[in-house]
Order: sequence, then structure tokens, then C-alpha cells
Amino acid sequence: MSQYQALKQTCYDANMQLPALGLVLFTFGNASVVDRENRVFAIKPSGVPYATLRPEDIVIVDFDNNIVEGTKRPSSDTKTHAVLYSHWAHIGGIVHTHSTYATAWAQAQLDIPVLGTTHADHLTADVPCAPPMADDMIAGDYEHETGWQIMNEFTRRGLAPDEVEMVLLANHAPFTWGPTVEKAVYNSAVLEEVARMAYLSTTLRADVPRLKDALIKKHYERKHGVNSYYGQ
Amino acid sequence: MSQYQALKQTCYDANMQLPALGLVLFTFGNASVVDRENRVFAIKPSGVPYATLRPEDIVIVDFDNNIVEGTKRPSSDTKTHAVLYSHWAHIGGIVHTHSTYATAWAQAQLDIPVLGTTHADHLTADVPCAPPMADDMIAGDYEHETGWQIMNEFTRRGLAPDEVEMVLLANHAPFTWGPTVEKAVYNSAVLEEVARMAYLSTTLRADVPRLKDALIKKHYERKHGVNSYYGQ
Amino acid sequence: MSQYQALKQTCYDANMQLPALGLVLFTFGNASVVDRENRVFAIKPSGVPYATLRPEDIVIVDFDNNIVEGTKRPSSDTKTHAVLYSHWAHIGGIVHTHSTYATAWAQAQLDIPVLGTTHADHLTADVPCAPPMADDMIAGDYEHETGWQIMNEFTRRGLAPDEVEMVLLANHAPFTWGPTVEKAVYNSAVLEEVARMAYLSTTLRADVPRLKDALIKKHYERKHGVNSYYGQ
Amino acid sequence: MSQYQALKQTCYDANMQLPALGLVLFTFGNASVVDRENRVFAIKPSGVPYATLRPEDIVIVDFDNNIVEGTKRPSSDTKTHAVLYSHWAHIGGIVHTHSTYATAWAQAQLDIPVLGTTHADHLTADVPCAPPMADDMIAGDYEHETGWQIMNEFTRRGLAPDEVEMVLLANHAPFTWGPTVEKAVYNSAVLEEVARMAYLSTTLRADVPRLKDALIKKHYERKHGVNSYYGQ
Repeated sequence: MSQYQALKQTCYDANMQLPALGLVLFTFGNASVVDRENRVFAIKPSGVPYATLRPEDIVIVDFDNNIVEGTKRPSSDTKTHAVLYSHWAHIGGIVHTHSTYATAWAQAQLDIPVLGTTHADHLTADVPCAPPMADDMIAGDYEHETGWQIMNEFTRRGLAPDEVEMVLLANHAPFTWGPTVEKAVYNSAVLEEVARMAYLSTTLRADVPRLKDALIKKHYERKHGVNSYYGQ
Repeated sequence: MSQYQALKQTCYDANMQLPALGLVLFTFGNASVVDRENRVFAIKPSGVPYATLRPEDIVIVDFDNNIVEGTKRPSSDTKTHAVLYSHWAHIGGIVHTHSTYATAWAQAQLDIPVLGTTHADHLTADVPCAPPMADDMIAGDYEHETGWQIMNEFTRRGLAPDEVEMVLLANHAPFTWGPTVEKAVYNSAVLEEVARMAYLSTTLRADVPRLKDALIKKHYERKHGVNSYYGQ
Repeated sequence: MSQYQALKQTCYDANMQLPALGLVLFTFGNASVVDRENRVFAIKPSGVPYATLRPEDIVIVDFDNNIVEGTKRPSSDTKTHAVLYSHWAHIGGIVHTHSTYATAWAQAQLDIPVLGTTHADHLTADVPCAPPMADDMIAGDYEHETGWQIMNEFTRRGLAPDEVEMVLLANHAPFTWGPTVEKAVYNSAVLEEVARMAYLSTTLRADVPRLKDALIKKHYERKHGVNSYYGQ
Repeated sequence: MSQYQALKQTCYDANMQLPALGLVLFTFGNASVVDRENRVFAIKPSGVPYATLRPEDIVIVDFDNNIVEGTKRPSSDTKTHAVLYSHWAHIGGIVHTHSTYATAWAQAQLDIPVLGTTHADHLTADVPCAPPMADDMIAGDYEHETGWQIMNEFTRRGLAPDEVEMVLLANHAPFTWGPTVEKAVYNSAVLEEVARMAYLSTTLRADVPRLKDALIKKHYERKHGVNSYYGQ
């Protein structure tokens, strides 16, 4: 029996949450879970519909994208996951979807501005939209470079991946992560709802103001302060 | 056995209506029910997902936010509920959600104008949007001040909470109430639909006119006149 | 046993289709069926939620709005139905909803322009929006005058109710009808979809052109010509 | 027993996918499957609701629109399917729907611009919108000419039907196809989602840029290159 059976099951369960939450159509998404001790991660196989996906279809891959276990081809986004796991030591799971509203913002190449507390309860920055990749990155090792495009944008903006657990990739779609894959799935659903609310507010009022600083600070402290509290 | 068992069950049932009506994602909402005789109210615990919520998880709190019964932490919005129950003697239940369209209007910091009879059958005023709170209110006892921000806006506009049973809080989301928590839940669903229709009418026609005075008066009288009738 | 039992069942079945098709929230709608021989119609009772509605709750009313059979109060829109049945001899059923997109157009006080064949397959005119009622009509016998407002608009525009089986009432919501109540229900669902598509096309392109005359004529003839055909 | 029983079943299964995927209301759509050996195709009968459709209701028609087998009238769009099967030798199935967002673009008479990788993973061109038909084509053999309008637009633009498996018909709605009818159904669902995302991006940002050439090229090669890979 595989030593990675529990990892595969966790990965399978997370992947199955994506269609249940209305975040993926057909095969447009994938979730992965890392095993830091063995420096491998479990990820959805490529092109397998959720309706027929089984736990034993999950592929185990190392940080250099070698298949460690599994008979199927891993997701075409595997190299992007590998880059993030390699460099961001504290994340335990990654989710990629093409959820409708988040993708609409990514296609518009716009950050999602923090307009309300639904957003600020989860992150107090705008959801960053990494710019379109340079032509040589695209022509090169595309999915590997996609990981670097995300990391470089976080560096450029001075964002911490433990604090901002989501990103839009211009022209593409969102990635989210978290200490666990369950949190990464949760973040994908929150991002889609935040993207939808921001779409509605922006089309209702073109000059909609960002959340005032005092509220951003308050919500940051509710979550992070020594006397943190929150949960509704 | 708890003397508040029936109160907890009523509160539980109302909370479970919120995901059933599509008004909450994850834990983004809460409902409470007051027991005026004992000056306590039952409210959803903080951070408990609806899928696993049980009647016995409901927390009993007094008007000074002391836990009277329950092993879980009450909703982080508890102080807002307490302020409203303390000062508005006729309300029996309160519901808070981050429902999508109502929240989009709150983020845009706009009242929802009365544009049709769907709205006027329930309230003949615009749905008021209380302005963003002052910085010192935010830095202070935030959730307690949130209650005051709502009440102060009703006073400033001369609105009666028995007549207008809903409010938007700028940058945040809606609160609704009513003589019973069932009515408060109903009002949350009506508000979301009214917010959606007003969004559509406004984006379709920027100069959409408010409902004419004669219709506002008629619908007020249909509901309140000596010969009141209504129900569809 | 009531001589109207079959009529009540037909009316009940039609009413139950409205929530199933996503056209009503709570009690925001009603369907009626006429019995021309006895000059009565069956209509939903006022204020009864669809979840608890039973066939025996349906009320039988004559064309002068007298209750012929039933223990409940008929829909508050009964007088509007009565006016239409009295004057439009060929209609067999009427449906009133506050369906979201159709109501958004009614609130915007705009006709729904014929933009495509989805619309033209059902009617080759714009969906007419009757203007807001005059103040004296509102202050008077409101629901009775609502029926006249619809009929007067059809007369003013030279529209035939056998040809155009739907109308928007400015500030209010749609009414649809047909030779049978099943057709009236079908028309309500078609109207909502046509209203949604027209909303999307109009917000996508402000100067979206109406359907060209040759296509309007063709679709009219597909439906009405001596060699009529259609059905997809 | 009919020699076309398997063909009918395949056609039936494909048609039933359309309401399951939320792509059709009532009878607003149809799917067909070709049998190239016998130069016939199976298509949905006209006007039969999906709820009551049975495999034996499917009609077998030849490329000249003669009924080969079946007691029902074939879809009113049959002639359009026949033209495409006759001239595009490699397609195995065709689907026509009035899905909401795709139809909204068709009504707006606009191509759907390629704005992101969701689109580019499936086709690297804009989704073409064939212009409104000339008056004489409409007055003539309308549904037959509809097929020619699609083919002429592909010729005019130099598009290959094996590469671009979808089209919008101005004022009307989309058609999709593929090597199998299952692929044609898949393409209809992808088109609707791509149309929805492009609607949102365009209304969010009027000057939204098309996907950069390097990304279009990359996604074309991911799918078609000698080392093609893809599947998520």
C-alpha cells in the first residue's frame, strides 16, 4: 500500500470541493497538497473530469516535477505548484480555478480593490493581479515561469504569502493557497465572492472608494492583534 | 434542561434558513432572537459552519454581552445585536448577512432607491445606507459602535425601526430585523432581491426615476391603512 | 364536491410551476384560470406561501370580483385579472410575477426591444411597458385600474392580446397570458429569459440595433403563415 | 429493429446534456449526430420538451433533409445542420442552443474577443459572429441559408472548422460542432462560460485588451504542437 494514500485522499477531497462550490467547469481547475517531509506533493491528474476522478488517480510529484507515484499525467499546471511549494515554506496546499468573476478581473488585468469588510476579513490588501508575462517567459518554460511571475509580483509589492493567500494572473485566472489545502479551497470560494461583490459595486458606481484606512487597520487587528477575535 | 431550549431552537431554525435562501457563504452571517422577559437573546456561535451547527451550540447572551448559557463564543457581531435590542423595544429578531447584491450597494455607499412595488410592498423609503463610521468609533468598541451607527442614522433621517426593518452599513453589509426572527429572515431575502432588481434597473438606465409619490402613498396605505390588504 | 375542483387543480398546478421555474420569491406572484361558461376564474389565495399551498385553497371568483367558492381571500391582484378576462375574450389564463429581469425593465420604464430570434420566435413586437398610472387611477380602485392601464396601452399601440401575450407595468412587474394557463406560465418564463438576454446585450453595447425587419417578418410568418412551422 | 438505434441513443444522450448543463430553456436547442457512411444524421424532433423526449423520438434525416426514419417532424433547424454536414467533412456532431451569454453577444452582433486562457485553451481566435443575413436569404430558404451564412463567414475570414468549432449568428444564437457530438456539447458549455467571462471583463473595463500574441501562440502550440500537452 502506498505511503501517500492519506495524502492522495486529502488531495482528492479538496479537488472534489471545487465543483461542489461552483468554482470549476469540466476540468478547469486543480488542487494540490504538499508533504514537506518527503518534499513531494499530491496533485490532480490532467484532463480527468471530476465526475470520474478517484483518489487513486491522484499523482505524487516531487519539487522538480518528477512523478514519484501514479499512472496518470499530472495537471499541466504542476510546475507552477512546484515553484510555489519550493519557495514559500509555510504553505500546505494550492488551488487553481478559472472561477467566473475572479477570472473576469484577471482578464481585465485589474487588482480587486478592497471595498468592504467581506474582503478585509480575509485580506487587508487589494487582491493583486500579476501583469501579463514577458514574451520570453511565455515562449520558455511557461508553467514554471508562471510560478515565478506570481512570486516576483509578491516581492515587487512587498506582500507576504502568509498574509495574502491569493493572486490573479493577468489574462489567466486565480491561484490561492494556505497552510492547509482546505484553507486554500476556502480562499478560492471567498475570492470568487469578493470578486463578484467588487464587480457589482464597481459597475454600480465607477468611482467607488476603497475601504478607509481605519477599517483596514481594524480588520487587520481583529485577525492578527494580541486580542484577535473573529468568526461571525 | 435549559429554560432557553425553545429560544435556541428558534434561533437555530432561523440561522439554518440563511444558507437555504442563498444569503450566506460559509459563516458570513448570523441570526438572533430576543427573550424580552429575561432580557437575553440567543445568537449563533462564532466561526461554526452552518453544515455542523446544532441547536445546542446556540449561545444565550444578556444585553450587556455577558454569556448566560453556552460553551461557545457568541458571534463577533453580538454587541451590535445587543445595542439594537436594548434601544428598539419592539424588535424580536435580528439577521446579519453579507448577501451579494445588498453588500454591493453597501460597498458603493449608496441607498437603494425605491424603484418599484416589490420594494414599496415592504418599505416605502429608500433602504438607508449608514455612512462609514468615524475613525474613533472604529478604533474604539467597534461592534458596539456599529449598533450606534445604525441607530444614529435612523434618528438623523427620522426613520422608525418598526417601519423600515433593514439597513445597509457602508463598506460592510446589511442588517435586518422584525417583530420575529422569521420576519427578519424574510426581510433579508426581500432586501437581497430588491437590491438585485435595483442594481439591474440602475445599470440599464442611469437616470432611472424613483417611484412616484402617489404609488408610494398607495402602497403605504395598502399595508397600513384602516382598510389594509395585501398578500398576492 | 365542488363543480370547480378540476379548475382549482389546474390553477394550483400552474401556480406551483412559478417557484419551480424560478419566477417567484415567497408570495410574489399568482396564476389564474378562467371558466368562460360560468364566467368565473380560479386564482391563488392572498399571502399563502407556495410551500403550503393546497388545491383546495384556490379561490373561485366571478368577473365582478365576488367570491363564488373558497374560504381564503383571493390574491390582491384579483381585480386586474378580472378586467382582462372581461374584455379579452380569447385568453384562458393569466400569470403575474415579479421575476427579476422583467421587473428590472419595468422599473426602468422601458420596453424590451426585440433584439434576436429568441424574442421573435414568441412575439415580433417589443415587449410593451405600460407607463406609470395617473395619480387619480392610483388613488382610486388601484388594482382594477391596473387592468385598464394594460388594456389602454394595448389599444393605444394597436396591439392584439392574441399576438402579444405579455406586458410590463412601469414601476411594477410583468403580466402574461395565453389561451391556456400553461401557455401563460410558459410566456412568463420566456419573458424572463428574453428580458435577461436584452439586459446583457444592452449593457454590452449601448447602441445595440433592433432586429431587422426582414427577420421580424420571417419569424412572424414561421409562426403564423399558411405554411407555419417551428419548434426547435 | 432500426439500424439507427445506436445513433438515436447517442443523439438522445447529447440532447439531454443540454438542459443538464443549463444551456437550454424549454425546447430552445438541439443536438445532432452524423452517420457519414449512410449520409444521414440523427436530430431532435421539433417542439418536444426535454422532459418527455425519448430515444425513439429522434428523427433520422438525410443530407437533402428527407426523413429516413421517425414519426415526428425534425427540428426546424435541420436544414442548417444538413448544410454543415454536407460541406464540412470532418465534423461528427452539431449543437445549437440559445444559451444566455452567448446569445447576448450574438444579439449585440459582436465577436467574443479572446481575453484569456480559458478561451485560448479552446480556440486562439475570437469567437466569430456571422453578420445578419441579407434580406433575400431571409425571405428564401431561411434555415438552409443559415448554414451558408456560417460557412461563408468562415471562408471570408479564412477560419478552419476543425480549428474554430463554434460560431455566433448575429441576432440569433450560437452553433457549435466537433469530431463527436460529445465534443460539440462540451464546446457549447465552454462557449457559454467564455461568453460570460468576456461580458464581465468588458463591462468592468471598456478598453480591455485582447490576449497578447505570445500567449495566443503558446496556447495554440500547447494544443497542436508536436509536443502538445494540456488538460488541467
